[in-house]
Amino acid sequence: MKIGFIGVGIMGSAMAANLLKAGHQLTIWNRSAEKCEALLALGASLAESPAAVARNSEIVCAMMADPLAVSSVRDGEQGIIAGLAPGQGYIDLSTIDAATSRETARLARQRGALFLEAPVAGSRKPAEDGALTIMAAGDKALYDQALPLLEAMGKKILFLGEVGSAARMKLANNLVMAGMLTALAEGMALASGSGLDLSQLLEVLDSGALSNPMFRLKGSAMAAQAGFPAAFPLKHMQKDLRLALQLAEELKQPLFATATVNELYKQALANGLGDSDFAAISSVVSSKRP
Amino acid sequence: MKIGFIGVGIMGSAMAANLLKAGHQLTIWNRSAEKCEALLALGASLAESPAAVARNSEIVCAMMADPLAVSSVRDGEQGIIAGLAPGQGYIDLSTIDAATSRETARLARQRGALFLEAPVAGSRKPAEDGALTIMAAGDKALYDQALPLLEAMGKKILFLGEVGSAARMKLANNLVMAGMLTALAEGMALASGSGLDLSQLLEVLDSGALSNPMFRLKGSAMAAQAGFPAAFPLKHMQKDLRLALQLAEELKQPLFATATVNELYKQALANGLGDSDFAAISSVVSSKRP
Amino acid sequence: MKIGFIGVGIMGSAMAANLLKAGHQLTIWNRSAEKCEALLALGASLAESPAAVARNSEIVCAMMADPLAVSSVRDGEQGIIAGLAPGQGYIDLSTIDAATSRETARLARQRGALFLEAPVAGSRKPAEDGALTIMAAGDKALYDQALPLLEAMGKKILFLGEVGSAARMKLANNLVMAGMLTALAEGMALASGSGLDLSQLLEVLDSGALSNPMFRLKGSAMAAQAGFPAAFPLKHMQKDLRLALQLAEELKQPLFATATVNELYKQALANGLGDSDFAAISSVVSSKRP
Amino acid sequence: MKIGFIGVGIMGSAMAANLLKAGHQLTIWNRSAEKCEALLALGASLAESPAAVARNSEIVCAMMADPLAVSSVRDGEQGIIAGLAPGQGYIDLSTIDAATSRETARLARQRGALFLEAPVAGSRKPAEDGALTIMAAGDKALYDQALPLLEAMGKKILFLGEVGSAARMKLANNLVMAGMLTALAEGMALASGSGLDLSQLLEVLDSGALSNPMFRLKGSAMAAQAGFPAAFPLKHMQKDLRLALQLAEELKQPLFATATVNELYKQALANGLGDSDFAAISSVVSSKRP
Repeated sequence: MKIGFIGVGIMGSAMAANLLKAGHQLTIWNRSAEKCEALLALGASLAESPAAVARNSEIVCAMMADPLAVSSVRDGEQGIIAGLAPGQGYIDLSTIDAATSRETARLARQRGALFLEAPVAGSRKPAEDGALTIMAAGDKALYDQALPLLEAMGKKILFLGEVGSAARMKLANNLVMAGMLTALAEGMALASGSGLDLSQLLEVLDSGALSNPMFRLKGSAMAAQAGFPAAFPLKHMQKDLRLALQLAEELKQPLFATATVNELYKQALANGLGDSDFAAISSVVSSKRP
Repeated sequence: MKIGFIGVGIMGSAMAANLLKAGHQLTIWNRSAEKCEALLALGASLAESPAAVARNSEIVCAMMADPLAVSSVRDGEQGIIAGLAPGQGYIDLSTIDAATSRETARLARQRGALFLEAPVAGSRKPAEDGALTIMAAGDKALYDQALPLLEAMGKKILFLGEVGSAARMKLANNLVMAGMLTALAEGMALASGSGLDLSQLLEVLDSGALSNPMFRLKGSAMAAQAGFPAAFPLKHMQKDLRLALQLAEELKQPLFATATVNELYKQALANGLGDSDFAAISSVVSSKRP
Repeated sequence: MKIGFIGVGIMGSAMAANLLKAGHQLTIWNRSAEKCEALLALGASLAESPAAVARNSEIVCAMMADPLAVSSVRDGEQGIIAGLAPGQGYIDLSTIDAATSRETARLARQRGALFLEAPVAGSRKPAEDGALTIMAAGDKALYDQALPLLEAMGKKILFLGEVGSAARMKLANNLVMAGMLTALAEGMALASGSGLDLSQLLEVLDSGALSNPMFRLKGSAMAAQAGFPAAFPLKHMQKDLRLALQLAEELKQPLFATATVNELYKQALANGLGDSDFAAISSVVSSKRP
Repeated sequence: MKIGFIGVGIMGSAMAANLLKAGHQLTIWNRSAEKCEALLALGASLAESPAAVARNSEIVCAMMADPLAVSSVRDGEQGIIAGLAPGQGYIDLSTIDAATSRETARLARQRGALFLEAPVAGSRKPAEDGALTIMAAGDKALYDQALPLLEAMGKKILFLGEVGSAARMKLANNLVMAGMLTALAEGMALASGSGLDLSQLLEVLDSGALSNPMFRLKGSAMAAQAGFPAAFPLKHMQKDLRLALQLAEELKQPLFATATVNELYKQALANGLGDSDFAAISSVVSSKRP
């Protein structure tokens, strides 16, 4: 299939590479052109604008960092919408709020195109391995058509119904992720202050019902309080917490623990950790500030 | 070996049964005598007091709910200490604070006995399956002697050094457990309020880096908001949170998220959920009060 | 002066009445026309739209509940902006976010008009007594011209500089107010659970450095847990907390206590207390739910 | 009257001085003898132990920092109890938990003495001015006898019933105090981050229903983020928060906001601010760490 891919950062480039590997013809665009080079070397073509990508593709995918970035590649004369023709498909893989997603759906459908929001769970490694979880919602016909693409990028694919549902599911997932990692960070701070060996704590946690891949993946770096290269940048996790709390406000749903976790992530931003991995929250939680 | 076992509630009875299965000779005592019947049927003998248990055993184990219960079977003329002779072993499997544990060690050593604190991670099912994680600390000689017993009850056994270390490790573990489950409960509340299917949320969570046995075990009951028979009673989890926060105060270690989680568990107690499973926290988190 | 006044709810009607008392000629408009009757009886005139109010006034004031309500009377053919002529003044007395206020300033200035944001501190009683605190920001010339009006409504008037500053000052004020009242509510819950006499607690609090009019005003109703007719509706306080937390997110400023207070206010909304006075937070804080 | 006074720190020395001024004969003792000098110069006598103070007095007062310090001057051969004779009075002015206070009452009554717990509200300045609020509970006969003493130290004196009631009332008062000051600190952090003038914020807060002496007293130092000489040491406020939260746990009363405020105070301790005034919490709240 002729596929467009816009936004080739950490996640997007790994996902796009899996589409190339699956034999699809890929046209790409990125705000910073130099991030496109690796994919061009793998056989992708470069277009001069999001609109141009859309004009060259049956289905155009976008993987952006936040709602503002989504609208920056979507709107205007050079935007994706401007390049869409009736019957084409637009799949937004970004993790954003439901309102932005619904607006994109509205604009795409005005052009006669189909739309799917399809945020993913998983960071760099699962993205590279084609092992993401993909939560899709929107036009079922496009979902059916795009399933081979989604399966090239993820191993667990769910269709969740109307536009907005996948955005919300993703927020619920990330809220749980942030809560779990903060719990680990606080457990480590308590253990460390008590003179315990953090590798033994990780061993205990991994031996029973709490055992999970994330703790295995992040635990050692958190124990060492050093080296948090971003698999999932902390500022994006804080953005997701903000969106989750905004949604909860609309629903009149108190989220006491998540609201507190969000303040810890804000403290991490204030401490200059926005571009570190979200596991850097452990350096905020520990009272031993270097 | 001749083993004593005091405290045969949900956890203790399952652990004692595994000692019987491993071929050990068991003398038991419990405050409510009727809880002893199943073990007596399996071949255990009943003693008339904790002191009598101790007099009949090479190693005496206790599995109590909290520090007060520990001292109630430990102290006085009928208590374990009164029945201890030089060279005997006393293993306290309860999850309690380090100070109580150190006091028990001091009393046991005054009698010439050896002491091990050995709190366990895992609830009813792992207890039945002999698959607990056991964190031991205290006299290494007793640890070496008792290893076959511990291996009959658990599959992961760690020796952590001086008395107090295992108590603290257990608190760190349970702090993480409470934080994870509260994160799940808040994620569910957000998803449910958004009209999402909670079984799909559980599927998403189980598909990636967050996948863990506890979510699989507790998730469905939490989604249904019904039926929380106690595998691990909520009031015991709140007690562990209280002990963890007390330890953190001594260490001047702020634990913002855990402090908030503790307030949610206190709300659950106020709502009469102390004897339900700790997963009943989900009914407090949800704003939809029936 | 010929003054327009749009939005005559609890606060607006009391403020408008003070303008009438001060001898100004008043044209009014309200979405629900029946709320205008008392002012019409005092001599005000009714206009058919916000635009019509603006056309009949030298200075037009608006006192709305939230940003959405502000734009509903500001925009469109029937909106205030449409009725503004060069040289006229537009004073927005609503408590809203800085962004909305800046947008109003931009629109007013496009028409050649002057703009002042002027949120007020104080609820029904100070509004009736002309004893509000008014925080003004925007066009200094309009401030100088409008000072007699402001002094008819308030006893403490500050000029804070550029548009947005007063909106932010108001949010800081209300954040402190919510925090203080929540502290009182939690102190009462602790005292009440301890079997103490809450009137003695209020006497203690009023005897020293904490003594303040709000505790005197709200304390008895909170002690009685009954009767919270809205002087300042709880839902508006929660809106202000939300705006304060949004601002804090932009500033990367953690506000741990305020975030928790906001969740309590959200719980109050979930409990159906949005239209009660914000002192009804005490019924959420107390664990004794009737 | 012949009065004994034990514990002459910041508060105790000011209170004892007022007893001297009122014409009472004073015998004193303090762990650090050098703190006694000013009072000796005013005419007090020095005793060699708390027991000796008790033997020389009709009524012996103690003003200690925490439960541990209370028992250190109360117990043992050199302790107050050892020096008490039937009919004497023992007044503990310390802010401590109800359990410690009840234990003191039990010990005093065993000796045939009367007991009053009488924690005070107010810091250095009201202590010097004899303007404290004193919450008394215990033996009413001793209260009646001691009223002239209490009136020499305070201007608002309440009798609250059985021992424990005054301890709890004091905790409720201090919980409110900590919550109010944290609310001010967070309001200031928001205002400061927004570029507002903090002296204008203080002016706004002081103009309406929130106006209180504590904000006037502490506000300027908090705005300047500099100079927090201890009127009420932060570590004592954190101790009171800990005791309040312990009491709330016994009562199954969630205190979400107070639990969060306590974590902020713990962070302040971790930052080395324990001996600063409790208003130093503002330097923890602000995200701008120097």
